[in-house]
Amino acid sequence: MSESVPPAPPDSPERFVARMRAVGAAAYHDQHPFHLMMHQGRLTRRQLQAWIENRFYYQWRIPKKDAIILAKANDPDFRRAWISRITDHDGAEGREGGIRKWLRLAAAAGLDPNDVLSLRRVLPAARFAVDAYIDLVATRPLVEAVASSLTELFAPELMANRVMALERLYPWLDRAGLDYFRGRLVEAPRDAEFGLAYVVKHCTTRESQDRALAALTTKCHILWSLLDAIHFAYVTPGWMPPLWNGAS
Amino acid sequence: MSESVPPAPPDSPERFVARMRAVGAAAYHDQHPFHLMMHQGRLTRRQLQAWIENRFYYQWRIPKKDAIILAKANDPDFRRAWISRITDHDGAEGREGGIRKWLRLAAAAGLDPNDVLSLRRVLPAARFAVDAYIDLVATRPLVEAVASSLTELFAPELMANRVMALERLYPWLDRAGLDYFRGRLVEAPRDAEFGLAYVVKHCTTRESQDRALAALTTKCHILWSLLDAIHFAYVTPGWMPPLWNGAS
Repeated sequence: MSESVPPAPPDSPERFVARMRAVGAAAYHDQHPFHLMMHQGRLTRRQLQAWIENRFYYQWRIPKKDAIILAKANDPDFRRAWISRITDHDGAEGREGGIRKWLRLAAAAGLDPNDVLSLRRVLPAARFAVDAYIDLVATRPLVEAVASSLTELFAPELMANRVMALERLYPWLDRAGLDYFRGRLVEAPRDAEFGLAYVVKHCTTRESQDRALAALTTKCHILWSLLDAIHFAYVTPGWMPPLWNGAS
Repeated sequence: MSESVPPAPPDSPERFVARMRAVGAAAYHDQHPFHLMMHQGRLTRRQLQAWIENRFYYQWRIPKKDAIILAKANDPDFRRAWISRITDHDGAEGREGGIRKWLRLAAAAGLDPNDVLSLRRVLPAARFAVDAYIDLVATRPLVEAVASSLTELFAPELMANRVMALERLYPWLDRAGLDYFRGRLVEAPRDAEFGLAYVVKHCTTRESQDRALAALTTKCHILWSLLDAIHFAYVTPGWMPPLWNGAS
């Protein structure tokens, strides 16, 4: 007769948080070669523009992603906290949202905001990566969807470095276009704090902790693949897909 | 008072089919640099293996894709014709399916079929591209889902060239592993003929024809992006995502 193996005990909250931070240290896209090029001032004007065009699709989908999470939640307290993510991006009475700010970044980089908004400049592979984020939050349990948002834990340092790098190294970029990143310096830590507390509270078994870590890793792969797609088309090897009307 | 513009008349069946064939001529993945390398014998053993590992995820999802299409159909005649696609891949009593044949290809290339079957070797970006195909058939109308399958129109020539190239240029590959492609030489034309007749019959407006062409183009981008992901990780620039357990 075989003895059943007892399930592994859950990690302590401190250890669980440390494992999440280790995912970010290893796989967050701040270490992607395209971001390193950006922060070293080595992107051409067209390459930085292409990043703004493609990353816009991510910005565009964030409120939809958060609405899916909102629709999964049954707790009014959770929804009350989460709903600000949607208004942060869509805007509200008297307050400009992140999507508009991103389009101002596009204009500051010499792009036509309406062309960016048309999404025709989004590479197919960039679209597939971002849509995988929608699929992840739609198909996994609430706590895993929340865990996937915890890349926000790693964002503030990247945002701070980015504002400095863009101001210093890309003088042709109008500085007024950088408000998006300045806003995220405030929003991301607030959001991450809430999300982290929620995930730690609700992942009380080792299995649920592991699933949360897997969701966070997949989210890192989504952000990484988005940059892979831009790098492939605009840096190395520099190939665009055929019959893609964003090339013209 | 503005005069309304009359809608464009539909293309004739001949013209509509010609437009679909033009999508294939421009964007089918037979022209992707990775396939050109493959057919010129320029892939290393590891690069060809990586293609087999990643393309397996596409094979793995095909029956699910076809089950989603089956579930959209209301016509028993349609379902009776379409169901053979699922048994072609899953197999049936006394008949080996395409998934098993692909795993025999993996073994013929020196891979462990169970390792391939575990999907751990599937690059995140390859997964996102293939999952976009599932999303396409799940979220668009039946006729557009069928149109997206019409890359089969362009497959037989690629399959015939591939069998010749793999036999001649990769002598270390066991020829018994090539049955998958030989099977597709028979199945793809039969499936494409049915799908093409269905799409031509049901797209009777210019708008529906254009939507069918858009679905076919997106499908070409999915196949193209799958090869982009393999090329990026295993050829140029040769970078794999961090915390991806297929790298070891």
